[in-house]
Amino acid sequence: MKHNSTGVLVEELRSWAEQAPAGARLPSTRALVAEHGVSPVTVQKALRQLVSAGLVESRPGVGNFVRALRAPAPQDYSWQTAALGPRSGSRGLASALRSISGNHIDLGSGFPAPELVPDRLVRTALTRAARSRAVVNWPSAEGLPDLRAWFASELAEEMQAGLAPPRENDVLIFPGSQPGLGACFRALVGAGQPLLIESPTYWGAILAAQQSGVQMVPVPISGEGPDPEEVDRAFQRSGARVLYAQPNYTNPTGTQWSAERRSAILDVIRRNGAFLIEDNWARDFDTDSHPQSVAAEDEAGHVVHIRSLTKSVSPAIRVAAVMARGPARERLLAAAQAETIYVSGVLQAAALDVVTQPAWRTHLRGVAQQLRSRRTMLLQALQAHAPQVEVAHVPRGAFHLWVRLPDGVAAEPFAQQLAAAGVGVVPGDELFPAEPTGAHLRLTYAGPAPEKYEEAAQIIGHLLTRWA
Amino acid sequence: MKHNSTGVLVEELRSWAEQAPAGARLPSTRALVAEHGVSPVTVQKALRQLVSAGLVESRPGVGNFVRALRAPAPQDYSWQTAALGPRSGSRGLASALRSISGNHIDLGSGFPAPELVPDRLVRTALTRAARSRAVVNWPSAEGLPDLRAWFASELAEEMQAGLAPPRENDVLIFPGSQPGLGACFRALVGAGQPLLIESPTYWGAILAAQQSGVQMVPVPISGEGPDPEEVDRAFQRSGARVLYAQPNYTNPTGTQWSAERRSAILDVIRRNGAFLIEDNWARDFDTDSHPQSVAAEDEAGHVVHIRSLTKSVSPAIRVAAVMARGPARERLLAAAQAETIYVSGVLQAAALDVVTQPAWRTHLRGVAQQLRSRRTMLLQALQAHAPQVEVAHVPRGAFHLWVRLPDGVAAEPFAQQLAAAGVGVVPGDELFPAEPTGAHLRLTYAGPAPEKYEEAAQIIGHLLTRWA
Repeated sequence: MKHNSTGVLVEELRSWAEQAPAGARLPSTRALVAEHGVSPVTVQKALRQLVSAGLVESRPGVGNFVRALRAPAPQDYSWQTAALGPRSGSRGLASALRSISGNHIDLGSGFPAPELVPDRLVRTALTRAARSRAVVNWPSAEGLPDLRAWFASELAEEMQAGLAPPRENDVLIFPGSQPGLGACFRALVGAGQPLLIESPTYWGAILAAQQSGVQMVPVPISGEGPDPEEVDRAFQRSGARVLYAQPNYTNPTGTQWSAERRSAILDVIRRNGAFLIEDNWARDFDTDSHPQSVAAEDEAGHVVHIRSLTKSVSPAIRVAAVMARGPARERLLAAAQAETIYVSGVLQAAALDVVTQPAWRTHLRGVAQQLRSRRTMLLQALQAHAPQVEVAHVPRGAFHLWVRLPDGVAAEPFAQQLAAAGVGVVPGDELFPAEPTGAHLRLTYAGPAPEKYEEAAQIIGHLLTRWA
Repeated sequence: MKHNSTGVLVEELRSWAEQAPAGARLPSTRALVAEHGVSPVTVQKALRQLVSAGLVESRPGVGNFVRALRAPAPQDYSWQTAALGPRSGSRGLASALRSISGNHIDLGSGFPAPELVPDRLVRTALTRAARSRAVVNWPSAEGLPDLRAWFASELAEEMQAGLAPPRENDVLIFPGSQPGLGACFRALVGAGQPLLIESPTYWGAILAAQQSGVQMVPVPISGEGPDPEEVDRAFQRSGARVLYAQPNYTNPTGTQWSAERRSAILDVIRRNGAFLIEDNWARDFDTDSHPQSVAAEDEAGHVVHIRSLTKSVSPAIRVAAVMARGPARERLLAAAQAETIYVSGVLQAAALDVVTQPAWRTHLRGVAQQLRSRRTMLLQALQAHAPQVEVAHVPRGAFHLWVRLPDGVAAEPFAQQLAAAGVGVVPGDELFPAEPTGAHLRLTYAGPAPEKYEEAAQIIGHLLTRWA
């Protein structure tokens, strides 16, 4: 309603302004309210849109005037080319971030659909936080003590008795895992220095690595994770001191490290005097196995553990924890301060509120149930209608299928064909830190409208037939 | 109440656990609720604290157990020294961020006190946003269109007719000005490259510059801003292409550039094919003059304009706009994506809600009134009780007094003496990108308890007498 009445008023004022002489004064807000039967808020909104569109000029305390007409000469920004120099780093907007039009079947976006968000819990928590002192208080750079204690105790519960558990003081709060990744790469690796990174891996990690200027050294994922000997060799050849990995439900491959793999890789990390940046992004999306953190086996500060709530709690709750001990924690705190100063206290309070409700666990069980059924639907649809794609691995958590395309099919142009046919996917190429080793697609089953998986698989199968 | 009952229960369970054998099972939540007459939430909180303290181990679905005792041997993290290498960059937590104990008179923190925050507007806005789709929707990397249009129209209103006003598309939303500064320095300057920066300047800008690895080239503030000829020479000598400055109510000096200064410096910027990063941090705190943006005089994309709402709207509303045109905008968008992905939609919606309420303008007028009266109180108190300090300039906006200490007094140790005597201040040294040119203090009159300014001035005067 409100939106429509603003739109109507904007259009009426626009045609009036286009015919009026430059400098003509618009009727007062009061007059517009009376004349058009709309609220003062609607009038203000409409005027702002006209100002923003360059048609009207507002002189505070004086009035609103039709702007002097001016040939809309395109601005010439070419001087910036010399000032900015050649572009380095990122290749533009990642596929997973591109907005998906209403008609598409979205297997591309890595963000869970609204029906997987515990919206009632979040709304209540935000409303409570809105009444609290968090609205007027400045939180510390480290984060809210109670929230940090919650993250620490969650990890402590995974640890064997006998190992020193992490404490509140070992936890730093970041506004999402992306700023946390950037801080880790800058504080623990540094520009120009080598970083071992699983390949393929999360596009956000690749972007953060490029942005922080570290030198990526890809380590292939083989079977159930990177080969410990391969990791060892990569450490020694590159001189790297840090490995970035997702031991649970790797994005995009869905891999989960076995207990043997975890301890073998932690061993390699220790022998090389190195860090593991463990991105535990899908801890809340355990559909068929328990997520097991490598951090729970380490008390000597080798594992820096990243745990975000954004995907599981709400897109509005940009809250993640980075857990680290020793001097690494000091470096990360300095980075947190320099990069974000602190995280909104309202978001931190609301996050803690949600995750300490009994209904939170119930919600997560419901999400796991939905993801299992979506996974089955997508797998069956592919089997029935797109048997040409190979699903090497059925993930036991999270919500990505990593499928291999037949030889001869190129992932990027095929993804473009799919997009043209209404199916959004992420072409695998952009998830490799170096050249891709094969043509893959990442198909996400956490998006909206799982009832369209069958149709999506038909389109994939049909286009593959035509390609061959 | 709640907090106390948790504390009591924690202490009771702690003494029980310390006497129980390792592995002993704690009573069930139900039993603890009955026995101690507290709520299940209190029991859960208490248990988490004991888990976090390492006294109790929780096995989900099984129960809670006393942890095996273990000599609390301090962990040895010395291996990290080799992995991390020498420290570079920041010198630790800035004075303005250090937490101030309850007894202090706080002239140090740069964050406005709760009574200067429009808390009712913010609480209502957050509550409304909590009911909206912002809880389940993933915003774009650019930010909410309506909020971006608002920032664009605000700046457009300052522009002369005839200049092309900024549009929604020229605005990018960041989670506070600190991430915005980091993105600007990385995207427009780049590690190892020179950046002209006012001296003294905002400590957050110095931290962000260090963190992004740019090479700071200080330009002194003389009189009413940097000398245009000095800026010109600095561009030519250093090869820099970017100047970072705060033309309105510079933190810490309180300087405001005159109209002539603005146009002279913009001219130098243009002639050098350079950018001005204009940090308009205090736009909402105009006590005695109108803030005038250099960006309002530029349509060719030379000025990148940063405008934050955190200090004026609420510490919980971490929302800032970075406005840029041309290829610079593309670089900044890529940086925004790589560093933050996007900003919480709830915070963006709440920010827009607050600034479009008529009560917002009323609130700002009230804040200006309060700041004027606080400024008078602090100036009079210093004149009466600490005549040794020199106030070269009375700021016409924001809330910092930049005072010079007598020759022979060193700012850092003097600030430490003041802190020991209960007065928090920021020693000027850390606000210079290079060596300080004199001993200064930054005294902020936006903190709590202005009735203590007289006492603070007495302490400053007294300690200066003793020093001399």
